[in-house]
Amino acid sequence: MAKVSDSKAKTVAAAARLFCQQGYHGTALHDILEASGAPRGSLYFHFPNGKEEIGVAAVALGAQAVHDFIAQASGAAQSAEVFVASLARGMAANLERSGYREGCPIAPTALETATHSKALGGAARKAFQSWEREIKRGLERFGLKPAEAERSATAVLSLLEGALLLSRTYRSIEPMQRAEKAAVMLVRGR
Amino acid sequence: MAKVSDSKAKTVAAAARLFCQQGYHGTALHDILEASGAPRGSLYFHFPNGKEEIGVAAVALGAQAVHDFIAQASGAAQSAEVFVASLARGMAANLERSGYREGCPIAPTALETATHSKALGGAARKAFQSWEREIKRGLERFGLKPAEAERSATAVLSLLEGALLLSRTYRSIEPMQRAEKAAVMLVRGR
Repeated sequence: MAKVSDSKAKTVAAAARLFCQQGYHGTALHDILEASGAPRGSLYFHFPNGKEEIGVAAVALGAQAVHDFIAQASGAAQSAEVFVASLARGMAANLERSGYREGCPIAPTALETATHSKALGGAARKAFQSWEREIKRGLERFGLKPAEAERSATAVLSLLEGALLLSRTYRSIEPMQRAEKAAVMLVRGR
Repeated sequence: MAKVSDSKAKTVAAAARLFCQQGYHGTALHDILEASGAPRGSLYFHFPNGKEEIGVAAVALGAQAVHDFIAQASGAAQSAEVFVASLARGMAANLERSGYREGCPIAPTALETATHSKALGGAARKAFQSWEREIKRGLERFGLKPAEAERSATAVLSLLEGALLLSRTYRSIEPMQRAEKAAVMLVRGR
């Protein structure tokens, strides 16, 4: 039983990484099998509905990781400025560490499937909303009023997502550094 | 000859739209043929190197359209605030008009291929850089100093790209509206 769960977790982790690096449609089931090392049978056992079901689990895994990262950054910060700057720095560090292969864990899947898959589109929506809520919660901790915090959270997440896209494409951390300064300015100047 | 060029243009336009809606890898050559109505032979004639070559042309087409839109918005605006607000509004209007199927014309392809295709990654980089330059140029027209204009252009483009991603995923214009307010604040408060 432990072994089966392990196969499932390995499959989802491998899928999440591949979808992040090369997109949902650019990743075939055999790529996931190869990267995970899990036996083919376990893939069909755990995901009887196929790739879309793996995609939903992969989006949920990425969603949880980013959510936890935001909560941790909020807990460690002493101000709204430090909080949003640490979000930008942490994401930039991840991107750099991956050799510019891994930006937002769910943006590629979200863009590819928004129009065609209700399940994947719904999972991506849930993910982004949970990040917005967690950023909002952090900003409220540092004194922003709920309506301000909500608007700023959307703007900060947009900045970070867009800058991850540019930084990944340019293979340069500079857009993330500019987004960091802009995010600090937004929560300061609100 | 006119007919041949027409087939080429139709192929690129159809490919650009499909890549925007469902991603690069999610679009097969036969999808492009079907959507363009161009004969199969013309596809191999105009794009002997296959799908990647079509992808590069599609990214260039999207790049030019957005570049022209930015230049037009800059020419029509009376201030930096009006300029960036009109960028957000124009993009939001496009997204809404397409039934939330078409956000940034090149973001899906950029994210899917950044790691694996030099040609597509290079085309996407060129596109984003040309948009940044055009936003910078607009901001300079309205009195921002070159270094300020450059930093702000990156931040504004990041905001718009990220908000397009969220708005498309949520099927709601609200993230774009919040990005518009944030972009105005950024160029005002710089």
